[in-house]
Amino acid sequence: MAVYTEVTDDELDAFLEQYQVGRALSCKGIAEGVENSNFLVQTETGPLILTLYERRVDPGDLPFFLGLMDHLAARGIPSPTPIRGRDGETLRTLAGRPAAMVSFLPGMWPRRITPHHCDRLGTALAHLHAAGRDFPGTRRNGLGVDDWRPLFDRCADHADEVCPGLAAELDEALADLEAAWPRDLPVGVIHADLFPDNVFFLRDEISGLIDFYFACTDFLAYDVAVCLNAWCFETRGEFNVTKARRLLDGYEAARPLDPAERQALPLLAQGAAIRFLLTRLYDWVNTPDGALVKPKDPREYLDKLRFHRGVADVRAYGLE
Amino acid sequence: MAVYTEVTDDELDAFLEQYQVGRALSCKGIAEGVENSNFLVQTETGPLILTLYERRVDPGDLPFFLGLMDHLAARGIPSPTPIRGRDGETLRTLAGRPAAMVSFLPGMWPRRITPHHCDRLGTALAHLHAAGRDFPGTRRNGLGVDDWRPLFDRCADHADEVCPGLAAELDEALADLEAAWPRDLPVGVIHADLFPDNVFFLRDEISGLIDFYFACTDFLAYDVAVCLNAWCFETRGEFNVTKARRLLDGYEAARPLDPAERQALPLLAQGAAIRFLLTRLYDWVNTPDGALVKPKDPREYLDKLRFHRGVADVRAYGLE
Repeated sequence: MAVYTEVTDDELDAFLEQYQVGRALSCKGIAEGVENSNFLVQTETGPLILTLYERRVDPGDLPFFLGLMDHLAARGIPSPTPIRGRDGETLRTLAGRPAAMVSFLPGMWPRRITPHHCDRLGTALAHLHAAGRDFPGTRRNGLGVDDWRPLFDRCADHADEVCPGLAAELDEALADLEAAWPRDLPVGVIHADLFPDNVFFLRDEISGLIDFYFACTDFLAYDVAVCLNAWCFETRGEFNVTKARRLLDGYEAARPLDPAERQALPLLAQGAAIRFLLTRLYDWVNTPDGALVKPKDPREYLDKLRFHRGVADVRAYGLE
Repeated sequence: MAVYTEVTDDELDAFLEQYQVGRALSCKGIAEGVENSNFLVQTETGPLILTLYERRVDPGDLPFFLGLMDHLAARGIPSPTPIRGRDGETLRTLAGRPAAMVSFLPGMWPRRITPHHCDRLGTALAHLHAAGRDFPGTRRNGLGVDDWRPLFDRCADHADEVCPGLAAELDEALADLEAAWPRDLPVGVIHADLFPDNVFFLRDEISGLIDFYFACTDFLAYDVAVCLNAWCFETRGEFNVTKARRLLDGYEAARPLDPAERQALPLLAQGAAIRFLLTRLYDWVNTPDGALVKPKDPREYLDKLRFHRGVADVRAYGLE
């Protein structure tokens, strides 16, 4: 849950005057996203989401993120539509922060994942990849394979405090991944963070895909691997192959994976596991006691990494 | 900001089926209140507030709180109206917690208090007191004069860690208050916690009074004293006598204080200061490092206590 910056009513009124959305009827900080401050603003014309971008977001990336959301929404993806002001702009400043408003999307993110959710997610992800194909912007993945080693170096000294032997284990896993990482899979815009809390469902169908603030240009199949990790493990760490199969079948119903992507999937899943393991480890080591946002346990992703390192081929994920 | 309990979509759907409000379109945890979990639920018939009562609220008090809100709203006070289910009940269970839904109130709480806000607040408080007069329920103030000493005893050993000499200073102030506390002022239902974040304004007029979960039966003028402390000090601790005068004038425009209430005001203001000083001190001493809700600094209320102990009579508050 996250509200880092307070907005006064005068500031909000002046901000909304730059749009054709009517006046604010209320503005409530919402427990959504951990990187930015998010508000649900009830205006005279309906609900909107107001986001103030906090320091972990590079302001230079915001035109890419907002442009992408605009592009996807125009192609029927249920992503938030950035609201344009009277001047045509979507990005401005509020309370000293870069700020934007986007459309409100109905639905709730699923607290208990079912195979059906995974099926719908897979198809939605494939649609997102297809809709992004003609998006002109590109953004380097700042948490891609080349970034893992430098990130690891910044927290390796404390890794064994989380789990004895972790530093050596990660060092070896990283070396293996760096040596074997594929170089020529299909590339496009990926979400890169499509966890359950970024996917809204309404009456069993997807009604919203949100939080595009890690979106970047990378292997499309890597996005699938991120989702396998985020959606297909049970709370006690067991891999649910039924959910994985439904997710992959759902994806392939809209965009079949090519043979190289299928073959690379165990490696991509290891990479996706180590990416979240490393950022969680970094946050774990660097979050001061008493911080408002509790860091997530990195060990969850260590278990996932170990699982995928033991996988021989895609049959482990339910594919033939 | 506070969401302590998660609600699944299935649980929410089953809960809403017990009301005639249509189905849920979304449900967002909101950063409002620190004691309970609050959600803004968009239903097919409009927005509602869903509250799950957490452990600091005594379930036995909930019928009083909900009954009071119902009573006040029926008399035109802009307080939340509890929503009745098909069975006529307002209180039921959700995700293992006592839970209720209330009407959504528009407006924003003022981040920068002006004398105008204080004037409107004073009048709204007097209206609240008048509307509560024929409310049949009563509830003992669990944080009244008789409760301060036991609360102090539970954190006195750590008081000097917050501020050297604090334990002795509080001991003396408490003894003075216990000896001089008035016994026969007008009594009625008071809000007892009407801080700025519990008061919504829309276009310069009050649109909502919320969070009745400290409401109780006590001196009406004590409620005024709570507001003097919460609304009339500047951020660096200066007492703003203009705001105090506007608050009191606004109150008296709807309900004149009687001479005994006026005379008691400096004492009541000391009492109101020590009540919040003690609960903040208790939370400060007892909040573990890393807690999600940061405790508020008790010293703010020490400064207020000292101010009121130096006050000779109500002229210090701008009254003639």
